[in-house]
Amino acid sequence: MKIYDSNTAPNPRRVRMFLAEKGIHIPYEQVDLGKAVNREPAFRQKNPLMTVPVLELDDGTCIAETVAICRYFEELHPNPPLLGTDTKDRALVEMWQRRMELELLLPIADAFRQRHEFFKGKIRQVPEYAAAQKLNAEERLVWLNDVMASRPFIAGDRYSIADITAVVAIDFGRVSKIGIQPDQPHLKRWHDAVSARPSAKA
Amino acid sequence: MKIYDSNTAPNPRRVRMFLAEKGIHIPYEQVDLGKAVNREPAFRQKNPLMTVPVLELDDGTCIAETVAICRYFEELHPNPPLLGTDTKDRALVEMWQRRMELELLLPIADAFRQRHEFFKGKIRQVPEYAAAQKLNAEERLVWLNDVMASRPFIAGDRYSIADITAVVAIDFGRVSKIGIQPDQPHLKRWHDAVSARPSAKA
Repeated sequence: MKIYDSNTAPNPRRVRMFLAEKGIHIPYEQVDLGKAVNREPAFRQKNPLMTVPVLELDDGTCIAETVAICRYFEELHPNPPLLGTDTKDRALVEMWQRRMELELLLPIADAFRQRHEFFKGKIRQVPEYAAAQKLNAEERLVWLNDVMASRPFIAGDRYSIADITAVVAIDFGRVSKIGIQPDQPHLKRWHDAVSARPSAKA
Repeated sequence: MKIYDSNTAPNPRRVRMFLAEKGIHIPYEQVDLGKAVNREPAFRQKNPLMTVPVLELDDGTCIAETVAICRYFEELHPNPPLLGTDTKDRALVEMWQRRMELELLLPIADAFRQRHEFFKGKIRQVPEYAAAQKLNAEERLVWLNDVMASRPFIAGDRYSIADITAVVAIDFGRVSKIGIQPDQPHLKRWHDAVSARPSAKA
């Protein structure tokens, strides 16, 4: 079993943090995105969509998509639970994880991808959309600060995958000058707490 | 328990199809998106992000996000399984569901939202991005036709949530003139098969 990883992209960090929280050690193989190794035929056989991370099982099965990989390990190593603790809680964690992904990570990623030199010629870039998504992400941070006024973690009382997605998103915002503002103390308190966990360095 | 629903939006249809495949009957309450009932304070209390569907439990807990709602019902009513059958299969279904969502439904939704009158003044529209996402979606259909050459359903041998997301995405493409092309027979064969299931009318 091994994971095709990249130290420069946000999604692989989500998997590394998830495994670090669970104390799981899996060999990582770096895929050099700068040299476009992910666009070569050998990698496309593992994931035709050319994204990292990819988990390769011993039988050769390749599982792409960050949350699919996390779910696989959650089932193999249920403790500590990062996808919820019972039926209702698992639905709520999924809701918050998806909100963090679709409302925060996606606009923050677009703010970079849709304007940055790195993606030129690789995707159809619309710089005006990068600017719109930057504003959308900043509005979401205002909302999220209010949410965090009354709870320690994104999905409630317990650290979960939703915290991982949110902290990875916000940290990736730096390259687009998106970040927590001085008038967002609840978000800052939460960010300080999750960033102090050993998993944040994974 | 009830579900806040809309007959005009794609995501609520995903939940209705999911429940129809499982034979689950839940009361639905229509939320009139045309009259912006989803933007009124009463609905924002249930879902601050103002999206449908929302599942309201008897204890008042509100679960938003389509896949979170589906996961809740998958746990309560495991058969027929629509999120996979074992640890590896569940990871693969999650992978395919996410590919259909992020690579097909998202661009198809953007092709509508980013240019259509209905969203004017509600979101930051970038019509050029609508055009780019239409082309992206059309390229994904070319890829997906190749994928479907060797499998009956999106995630493999068994109907799953990935089929639901894909058929809802493709059917919603009509409003943006995105659809299966005459030279995509595998995709057409699959679309005919999933559209013939009673759940497609849900």
